[in-house]
Amino acid sequence: MLHALDLARRIEAGELSAADVVDLCAKAIDAREEEVRAFAALDLPHAKVKAQDAGLASRPLRGLPVGVKDIFDTVDFPTEFGTPIYKGNQPRADAALVALIRRAGGIVLGKMVTTELAFLNPSRTHNPHDVSRSPGGSSAGSAASVAAGMLPITVGSQTGGSVIRPASYCGVAAFKPSYRLLPTAGIKPFAVYLDTAGLFAARVVDVAFAAAAITGRDLRVDQATSAPPRIALARTNVWDQATPAMQGALEAAAKAARTAGARVTEPAWAELLTAAFHAHAIVQDYEAYRTLAYEYDNHRAALSPILGTMLDKAAAVTADDYDAARRTTKRARQALAEFMGDFDVLLTPSAPSAAPGPDTTGPAIFNRLWTLMGTPCVNVAGIDDASGMPLGVQIVGRFGRDREALLAARFLEEAIAAAK
Amino acid sequence: MLHALDLARRIEAGELSAADVVDLCAKAIDAREEEVRAFAALDLPHAKVKAQDAGLASRPLRGLPVGVKDIFDTVDFPTEFGTPIYKGNQPRADAALVALIRRAGGIVLGKMVTTELAFLNPSRTHNPHDVSRSPGGSSAGSAASVAAGMLPITVGSQTGGSVIRPASYCGVAAFKPSYRLLPTAGIKPFAVYLDTAGLFAARVVDVAFAAAAITGRDLRVDQATSAPPRIALARTNVWDQATPAMQGALEAAAKAARTAGARVTEPAWAELLTAAFHAHAIVQDYEAYRTLAYEYDNHRAALSPILGTMLDKAAAVTADDYDAARRTTKRARQALAEFMGDFDVLLTPSAPSAAPGPDTTGPAIFNRLWTLMGTPCVNVAGIDDASGMPLGVQIVGRFGRDREALLAARFLEEAIAAAK
Repeated sequence: MLHALDLARRIEAGELSAADVVDLCAKAIDAREEEVRAFAALDLPHAKVKAQDAGLASRPLRGLPVGVKDIFDTVDFPTEFGTPIYKGNQPRADAALVALIRRAGGIVLGKMVTTELAFLNPSRTHNPHDVSRSPGGSSAGSAASVAAGMLPITVGSQTGGSVIRPASYCGVAAFKPSYRLLPTAGIKPFAVYLDTAGLFAARVVDVAFAAAAITGRDLRVDQATSAPPRIALARTNVWDQATPAMQGALEAAAKAARTAGARVTEPAWAELLTAAFHAHAIVQDYEAYRTLAYEYDNHRAALSPILGTMLDKAAAVTADDYDAARRTTKRARQALAEFMGDFDVLLTPSAPSAAPGPDTTGPAIFNRLWTLMGTPCVNVAGIDDASGMPLGVQIVGRFGRDREALLAARFLEEAIAAAK
Repeated sequence: MLHALDLARRIEAGELSAADVVDLCAKAIDAREEEVRAFAALDLPHAKVKAQDAGLASRPLRGLPVGVKDIFDTVDFPTEFGTPIYKGNQPRADAALVALIRRAGGIVLGKMVTTELAFLNPSRTHNPHDVSRSPGGSSAGSAASVAAGMLPITVGSQTGGSVIRPASYCGVAAFKPSYRLLPTAGIKPFAVYLDTAGLFAARVVDVAFAAAAITGRDLRVDQATSAPPRIALARTNVWDQATPAMQGALEAAAKAARTAGARVTEPAWAELLTAAFHAHAIVQDYEAYRTLAYEYDNHRAALSPILGTMLDKAAAVTADDYDAARRTTKRARQALAEFMGDFDVLLTPSAPSAAPGPDTTGPAIFNRLWTLMGTPCVNVAGIDDASGMPLGVQIVGRFGRDREALLAARFLEEAIAAAK
């Protein structure tokens, strides 16, 4: 994989140019894209021209190439949201996050495959670790391209589990920040109360570097020294839906963290969090039926069965249901703060299993609660199952404490590597 | 003015058709649009064709014509956001709220003039009560068109005071609901934490009818009987910036409400609300510098001086400033809940004065705190200054208690009328 932080440092040191990194990407794309199919649009010649800009090296992203999920508007690439309804759609402006990436000196190399309107219908992208399996969704191309070494940084988004789950399946680091830490203007929305932009990169230090460079916030964790985190093991209400292999991965991660000096204990699960888990679907469905009103009312036949059927059913969710789900959310956020009272972060699976077959993007059951809570989540790779497929575990931090979550994730990533 | 509720009832009764109402609009447009200049785009022939759909009469909006601020995407009208940067921009989809209006049986008659990117640079629209004066902004055309009798319902948005302030200047009812009660997907964003869609109509019962029809929520107040509201008079931290005429209007409104049986008392102002008032600018500026990154980085010269200069300065607002402002906001919401403990609603000016001259859209100082708090606000017209210009007063409700705010506003509107 391409390590964003290391590449940036080599550019800083004058050992490498932005054009060299575009060439590294081009070489990997040449080797892997035909089977992985991560790109919805790609313009290497344009990237090579942009990479000649000598001013890039002094900007935070140092001219590194970035891939952007194809639900973010881009002024120089079509933006089709993974659906034929928007075939050839060419935005007049960049999404805010895309503009911030360019402002920070990133080169947008291409658009990454998304599932249809960022929902559950499988995309054409394959898992680089086993092309007979799913890379997950909806940020399929964003996760797969990093895993295949084709890009050092990609952008995705999560409404249920669309950042953390594909990162788990593809064995890369990913960061779903606190709700709206990364701006969402210019993203095709699905459920605005939930839609959260996120980032993918090879390792936790890489994704933290990217987040810091794009936001200007103090989020880097590569130079940090900090006390081992106090970790709450959270099997959650869906623990029995995790495979034995994933259950074993969580235990192994907890053991590695303890060995490295962390305190890992397991507080009693708060039932209100289970109620919030169920509230997620109500919030998502109610909002999607309104947010996608244009597509549903005008292009119903062009929607996939899985999305069309969801919206059919969503029409029956009432405002009272929605308001009650929002109240449950509010109370659950308080319960979560209490649950985490003595802890820095939670540790929980990123997905119920390793990557499934190609007919599904997998369930978001280990993600949707945290999306609803708005808390920072980081996928930590490093554990594989018996067949060599990645099993990701997830660090969940407190709302607004994104750097603490990234620090704990780096700690865990190193602890897992050391335990091998 | 065209009274939406009365028109809908006459359509229900078979006394009027949707086509007849389009004709009423066309007649008023013919008489007033040349001097008021409220429309950014207009298609009467298309509306007349749509009005022939016999199914409209059974849908919640009964085929009533609606005007939409030109920062909402529309698939059948250009959407130019009030700036030459987006000249000829033609969206591929309707904004969610536009799609919901069509779903509810509304006919989108045209797009209403907005100030440049919904900020403060004056638009070409004139105040129908005195065309030498401003209609306010940024929802200039939305307010002016209702006031001029050209449309029964219009849509606007408020980030500082862009719904309530122009309604006050133009003497119409307006409803800025609780944050995100009306969906914001497909609106050109300015500061996502603040951007709130709202509605304009002739009277409170009309705007409540429109809100109920579009959302499917129980928001109508025309049939309701309820106890007189308990009103907290809120002069706020900017009272001394209100003109004597506006101060007199608030006192007159309070007196009318008391005469009609309401309890009106004045609790001590919470200083934390003053802190939140100042936090609004930090939140708005920090977000706008990121939300408008594409326009600022690529089209700086095409921005008006007032917007360009604001964004220049906004570059200096730090993430720490922003995070502190968000924390202040959170605490102020709790303080506001306590301030309102014994009250149903607040009563406060909608603007510091009657409509100013054409060189400004007027200050949002009586609005921005409530936008930041996310609370429902209703402009109540009915009081004029000595020269006959409208002076609006504002009912502010609790977050999520939108119907209570509309009920209190209807009560006040009737009390003011009765006191004349």
